[in-house]
Amino acid sequence: MTRQVVFSPSGRRGAFPEGTTVLDAARALGVDLDSVCGGRGICGRCQVVMGSRPGVEARPDRLSEPGPTETDYQGRRPLGAGHRLGCAARIVEDVVIDVPADSQVHRQVVRKRAGVAALPVDPVVRLHYVEVPEPDLASPTGDLERLLAALEQEWGLSRLVVDPPVLTDLQTTLRSGNWAVTVAVRHARDLIGIWPGFRDVALGVAFDVGSTTIAGHLCDLLTGSVLATSGVMNPQIGFGEDLMSRVSYVMMNDDGATRLTDVVRGALDDLLGELITEAGVDRGDVLELSVVGNPIMHHLLLGLDPRELGTAPFALVTTSALDTPAIDLGLQVHRGARVYSLPCIAGHVGADAAGVVLSEGPHRGERLQLLVDVGTNAELVLGNQDRLLAASSPTGPAFEGAQISSGQRAAPGAIERVRVDRATLEPRFSVIGQELWSDEPGFDFGAVTGVCGSGIIEAIAELHLAGVIDTDGVIRQPANPSSRVVASDRTFSYVLCAEPLVEVTQNDVRAVQLAKAALHAGARLLMDHYGVDQVDEIRLAGAFGSHIDPKYAMVLGMIPDCDLDRVSAAGNAAGVGAMMALLSGVARSEIEEVTNQIEKVETAVEPRFQEHFVAALAIPHKTNPYPLLSKVVDMPPRPEPGERRRRHPR
Amino acid sequence: MTRQVVFSPSGRRGAFPEGTTVLDAARALGVDLDSVCGGRGICGRCQVVMGSRPGVEARPDRLSEPGPTETDYQGRRPLGAGHRLGCAARIVEDVVIDVPADSQVHRQVVRKRAGVAALPVDPVVRLHYVEVPEPDLASPTGDLERLLAALEQEWGLSRLVVDPPVLTDLQTTLRSGNWAVTVAVRHARDLIGIWPGFRDVALGVAFDVGSTTIAGHLCDLLTGSVLATSGVMNPQIGFGEDLMSRVSYVMMNDDGATRLTDVVRGALDDLLGELITEAGVDRGDVLELSVVGNPIMHHLLLGLDPRELGTAPFALVTTSALDTPAIDLGLQVHRGARVYSLPCIAGHVGADAAGVVLSEGPHRGERLQLLVDVGTNAELVLGNQDRLLAASSPTGPAFEGAQISSGQRAAPGAIERVRVDRATLEPRFSVIGQELWSDEPGFDFGAVTGVCGSGIIEAIAELHLAGVIDTDGVIRQPANPSSRVVASDRTFSYVLCAEPLVEVTQNDVRAVQLAKAALHAGARLLMDHYGVDQVDEIRLAGAFGSHIDPKYAMVLGMIPDCDLDRVSAAGNAAGVGAMMALLSGVARSEIEEVTNQIEKVETAVEPRFQEHFVAALAIPHKTNPYPLLSKVVDMPPRPEPGERRRRHPR
Repeated sequence: MTRQVVFSPSGRRGAFPEGTTVLDAARALGVDLDSVCGGRGICGRCQVVMGSRPGVEARPDRLSEPGPTETDYQGRRPLGAGHRLGCAARIVEDVVIDVPADSQVHRQVVRKRAGVAALPVDPVVRLHYVEVPEPDLASPTGDLERLLAALEQEWGLSRLVVDPPVLTDLQTTLRSGNWAVTVAVRHARDLIGIWPGFRDVALGVAFDVGSTTIAGHLCDLLTGSVLATSGVMNPQIGFGEDLMSRVSYVMMNDDGATRLTDVVRGALDDLLGELITEAGVDRGDVLELSVVGNPIMHHLLLGLDPRELGTAPFALVTTSALDTPAIDLGLQVHRGARVYSLPCIAGHVGADAAGVVLSEGPHRGERLQLLVDVGTNAELVLGNQDRLLAASSPTGPAFEGAQISSGQRAAPGAIERVRVDRATLEPRFSVIGQELWSDEPGFDFGAVTGVCGSGIIEAIAELHLAGVIDTDGVIRQPANPSSRVVASDRTFSYVLCAEPLVEVTQNDVRAVQLAKAALHAGARLLMDHYGVDQVDEIRLAGAFGSHIDPKYAMVLGMIPDCDLDRVSAAGNAAGVGAMMALLSGVARSEIEEVTNQIEKVETAVEPRFQEHFVAALAIPHKTNPYPLLSKVVDMPPRPEPGERRRRHPR
Repeated sequence: MTRQVVFSPSGRRGAFPEGTTVLDAARALGVDLDSVCGGRGICGRCQVVMGSRPGVEARPDRLSEPGPTETDYQGRRPLGAGHRLGCAARIVEDVVIDVPADSQVHRQVVRKRAGVAALPVDPVVRLHYVEVPEPDLASPTGDLERLLAALEQEWGLSRLVVDPPVLTDLQTTLRSGNWAVTVAVRHARDLIGIWPGFRDVALGVAFDVGSTTIAGHLCDLLTGSVLATSGVMNPQIGFGEDLMSRVSYVMMNDDGATRLTDVVRGALDDLLGELITEAGVDRGDVLELSVVGNPIMHHLLLGLDPRELGTAPFALVTTSALDTPAIDLGLQVHRGARVYSLPCIAGHVGADAAGVVLSEGPHRGERLQLLVDVGTNAELVLGNQDRLLAASSPTGPAFEGAQISSGQRAAPGAIERVRVDRATLEPRFSVIGQELWSDEPGFDFGAVTGVCGSGIIEAIAELHLAGVIDTDGVIRQPANPSSRVVASDRTFSYVLCAEPLVEVTQNDVRAVQLAKAALHAGARLLMDHYGVDQVDEIRLAGAFGSHIDPKYAMVLGMIPDCDLDRVSAAGNAAGVGAMMALLSGVARSEIEEVTNQIEKVETAVEPRFQEHFVAALAIPHKTNPYPLLSKVVDMPPRPEPGERRRRHPR
């Protein structure tokens, strides 16, 4: 007697003999229903719910009554109310079976984080429980051959390539598991781990290796949940604050690349230790890792000499995504674990930019997005589902606080927020590490150490809005002279903080102008290539993107004019991209394909870049060319022609 | 204007525009014509000769006149008389082109060694010269991607997997080679090495890891020639003379397996050093290795615990052929080199037996061959092209000189050849390390240390032929008493050497009887399974097979009756098999397939084995059952029934 079964949400249907298990029916129809234990009622991953459709209402007796497998079920994943184990429940009548998202192999996990879409979870490493026939004098096959035959028969896994350590452990594991083992298989191809008995623990770590900080996220590969997140300083800072000084270190020291590689690997392993401790899990359960980073960080981590990235034509060793044994990177995790590094896009547009693209997904929609990731170089991506373009722009390290008279990295003591009173020109500011603003009682001026990138940007933008800095970037003594504006050589400076002295000098303004003009020109160049004058949305990625106020970025003209409410921080988009790649094989294929198709625009060989650069040196003003910004910010007027000549103090 | 071109020996033909190079025509037709440099006149591997057929005689002007590429050619492989470079010679008229064997990728190399057929040479590692476009600011691709594109375009190699060290070296190699490099590609799949410029050196080493000695052969992978051969003692002897005592060592010591693994790997690397020095080449040029060994040697070398091989059901970790990175086995060769271990057949029939099968090739002909490889266990293979059967027989270590009163390993001082005067019963013998026989003036009796396996076999066989040992294996005082036969407890012994005393005791005879009965019974069991009473040929492999005289092996009844001139030593057949696997991918596929199809017969579960064993304890005699042997050897008659009771001295 056959019964009709319909699965939802897939809609797949078929007729099966009465008594067929739901899991067997699902497998026969190719329905995406998870299982680690292979239908032995151990793992609880094949939970289903009875559904209904016209004529086939949800009636308990459409499935067999729960037997001991279900009533005594004690697995790690609790059996939900109204849930049945697909491997135990048998079809008795025509029935509709709902497969909840949690029971699908390829599923979506929704993060409770603004702006991050549902993450697909379909890790490249999967666990499979299998029972292996014992060896027999009469048919002398190897233990491995019997294991592989069982994996092929039960899981359809064929032609597996076996990691050597699995071979080493094979015999003792089979025997200590009494001929039942769980194996980890990567990409349905590589047998990377084996454990006695049933096991359903598989962890992964996603790393975002920045030149200043390294962030790590420890995830459960089975559920997609984040178990711990942490960060450490990149110890390469000891060899050079910014990227180019690290490349110089490599060029000037024979063992430079090796030392930079060693310290960053050590930092990753330390960070891994923190994550493991925080989550209370074992290093040996980490079976897969992923990593993003700019090209230089990417190369140094993988042990590739970054020297070529220091000079034109900035040739990467490879742009491809790589799988590297974790042990080769000095990471103490499961010895079969691999580290997936996302592809690089071009010489200055790295795996971090690929991570941002994967996370933000401009290629998944119609809106024309501009993604901006600011560092020593700004990495820029523009496009939508039709086309993607990428470029890097040589902003220099001014946005990181370098080349600024009182500049410093974004660290405790750095001025990061600035407001200037439009009438009195008195400043107030806040520093990293203190809750109070400088005009509030109890503010500790002794803790002020300098000004970081976001601080100098706000200061210059506020001074522009207050009329102290004109559209050409000249610091001028206002009509009503202020003691804050002081002459210095043939220029003026603005005293942001008197004790300790933190000034905004004319050179500081020039440095920021050069940096922001480069950023702006890069974006304009991409817009030219795309053939547009305006973008629908701007997303500012990375730590810098999170720190700066989009309004001030636009007041300065760092980025093209845009509706201010369509300009936002993307947070740690590169890190989210690394996490997506960690959790999903589909995401990896997606970013590899997208990266291949991105059109690379090299600013250095584009004459228009220079034109845009020169045009972008000025600070935008009320009448031209930032009409969208001018609607919401009271931009100072264009100076009168006569005024423009009084550049220097008399 | 098109011209007809016929290639021989392939017979492939086609029409090509006048001016096409011979190499291009060959490639277009899929003719097997070698090239490392890709047609740049550097490597000299595409040499061809003009041939003829009716109507198309060999006339020089059928090809273009030699230009500077040929007249100035200075490559490593000299241009033979009348030879043309296929990449330079252009087709002018209809022409017949002979491709000499040396210019084929898949070729046969004939060894000047009796009994070894032509070896196919088609190594799994091949070298490819390629020129790579330089990086360019306007199209920022990785150096690797440009290399891979060039390899695909020029050599048709796609989807190559790149070894991490190749990535590390990539940029400096491309630049130091001025954008021309030679790469080594394994199985047309793995990019394992890269060198600047053109290069055509690729070496390989085949190892035969015996429990007593380890032999190594250093070969040129491009030509198939042997550059050096050497051997060392297996230092595991320090942990146990025979295999079972080494397994016992592992069972009794926690770090036993590790120590045995370490010493054998060390010995292999030392041997490698010797081979390298002898041939005057570099370790870094060794790109591929192969290894055979019995299951326990195989497991220990690969770092696999051999414990399970010590007790029933003798489960191997794996029977499959394996590719292991040479670096994982502690071998200091090119860091991309892999070690190919031949497949194992069953728990006691190892990769050494697979090597013997590959070398002897019973599956390649009609003759029914019995292959015998004697060690602590005898590995036996019986069959022909229709069917192959394998078994191991528990001979114990008597054939290796153990369990014998004066027994010792085959080493200097061991008696290895014995003759007994039929009338006087006086012995004469020779020892390993001395040219003289013991009855020749100047023989040094002081150097005699014992008797080895072949010595005890000859002694017992000669004593049987002399009437001192009867068909039941009883040492008897002959009718005409001899001072050489002495009473000892309740049995007789034969004094082989008086000073130092080397005797053949009754227990010695019993030990050899048990061993030879096991060997014989194993062979009989295979013959039963095959359904035959007689074999066409018997090949005795390995060191023991080379030392024993087939006549004495048959007098004792170690092996089934056979035409004596069809019984011969196979020499180091396992080592030759390793060499074949080293040089040929086709040979690897062949032995993997054959090994899969071999029918394994387990003596321990076959009741008939016990029957054969009991029946084989007796020493054959004139009337029954060795008619073929009796034609050439004067076997003693079956004793009278009455005589058979006088077993013990009175």
